Amino acid sequence: MKVEIAKYSGYCFGVKRAMDMAWEELMENSENTQKQIYSIGPLIHNNQAMQKYKDKGLLIEEKVENIEKNSIAIVRSHGLSKYFYDKMEEKSIKVVDATCPFVKKIQDIVYKSHISGSKIILIGDRNHPEIIGINGWAEDSSIIINSLDDASSFEVDEHSDYIVVVQTTYKLEKYQQIEKILKNRLKKVEFFNTICYATRERQDAAGKLSKIVDAMIVVGGKNSSNTKKLAEICAENCDTFLIETAEELDLEKIKNFEKIGISAGASTPDFIIKEVEDLLLTK
Amino acid sequence: MKVEIAKYSGYCFGVKRAMDMAWEELMENSENTQKQIYSIGPLIHNNQAMQKYKDKGLLIEEKVENIEKNSIAIVRSHGLSKYFYDKMEEKSIKVVDATCPFVKKIQDIVYKSHISGSKIILIGDRNHPEIIGINGWAEDSSIIINSLDDASSFEVDEHSDYIVVVQTTYKLEKYQQIEKILKNRLKKVEFFNTICYATRERQDAAGKLSKIVDAMIVVGGKNSSNTKKLAEICAENCDTFLIETAEELDLEKIKNFEKIGISAGASTPDFIIKEVEDLLLTK
Repeated sequence: MKVEIAKYSGYCFGVKRAMDMAWEELMENSENTQKQIYSIGPLIHNNQAMQKYKDKGLLIEEKVENIEKNSIAIVRSHGLSKYFYDKMEEKSIKVVDATCPFVKKIQDIVYKSHISGSKIILIGDRNHPEIIGINGWAEDSSIIINSLDDASSFEVDEHSDYIVVVQTTYKLEKYQQIEKILKNRLKKVEFFNTICYATRERQDAAGKLSKIVDAMIVVGGKNSSNTKKLAEICAENCDTFLIETAEELDLEKIKNFEKIGISAGASTPDFIIKEVEDLLLTK
Repeated sequence: MKVEIAKYSGYCFGVKRAMDMAWEELMENSENTQKQIYSIGPLIHNNQAMQKYKDKGLLIEEKVENIEKNSIAIVRSHGLSKYFYDKMEEKSIKVVDATCPFVKKIQDIVYKSHISGSKIILIGDRNHPEIIGINGWAEDSSIIINSLDDASSFEVDEHSDYIVVVQTTYKLEKYQQIEKILKNRLKKVEFFNTICYATRERQDAAGKLSKIVDAMIVVGGKNSSNTKKLAEICAENCDTFLIETAEELDLEKIKNFEKIGISAGASTPDFIIKEVEDLLLTK
């Protein structure tokens, strides 16, 4: 059996950076200061990976109110609203800011535009932590749009300037449709296409590989929307199996394929991808 | 004497990431494969830092023709043109791609737009490796603009679609002036403000600190334009000294200041910033 891992499988650079920054902080702290280290929300939605961090002393906490003074807090790649930073400063908490630089750029645009009096339009999922965080840099005053209907129906203030930003993982085609509607409705508007290329790159690479193998294994959370999307793309080209861990691999079903490809969602650690690869190679 | 280091001093995240990726590769390689590792161009313009990498076996090479087959090549944060990637694939060279993700996004936009037939406008310095690399994703066909004159004078093709991208370190105000001219001249045009926030963040932090200290030490290359800009900003608020290394610090001149701030350019390693801080603290 031949096995090939698709390019750009697993962590995007923003998630990898956050995981590395948190790990470095945990290592350094265990040698030196011995302060409590928190992550505000889980760094990624993968229990196996998070357990390793918890074993080194990381506490996951959602509310800044529950974080003790003079401790250390990691801001995960999704970013946080200004409120958290202000509170952490008040409480003399050392901030390890692992906000994805692409998200940071959006926060920066939104904050400056909000201060200068523009109205903010966020295209994205209002329940996603990235969007909640970004909105917090405009005092939660943004217009949040996630459908063509949303784009057509909000009340336009003719006297206002608008700026438009987009969730980093948003689908380009959908953004372009929404942009078209907004261009027609708004007179004074500036668009920032802040979509990150990493999701598309991962999808393109998985799609390309799925065309030249007999089957694809997609590794990632069953509730992860980017993982499900990867599996959908691959399933158009070959038999595709979605698993969360190597243990879920049904070897009986795949034993007759000659060439197998692997791809993995943005929250899947390298060591799980490696486990799947190793298991396939021993068969 | 009190000493404070400005936030965001030294490496931006893209440079830090490239330095880390190169170091990891050197460490891993010395344990395992023992292949020759190249960097295409110096990772940063700092001799002291680069010497450490050379001591671990890194060779710096400008031309892909001079890189041997089956070796390992690091693409530095500035990125490279498509030509290099094609050549490296031909020669079975393993690519460690440390292109800054913000630059990668620009390359991605330019490549896709070029393929779909749009004309590309690059705002930036035509001699900067970032711009040379980006242009290489449009078969060197871009219109490169670096002044209001450039923006007013190139020949417009009425039948073409245009897209506009900007060098990541470009000055926002200058971009906005150029954008205004282009908006007037071009009918079918899409703008991507691809300026990265890191330079401005570093400048803002240095400026803020320079207002509450008695003197500032700015650490960085004397030929580095971002370092000189930092020193200019600080000099508006307090006595400012630009040095490349701790040895250049004139202790006689600064001994009477009570509170001293430190900032550093994008190519200054942390260990040099630390040397400067330590030297001040012992006085």
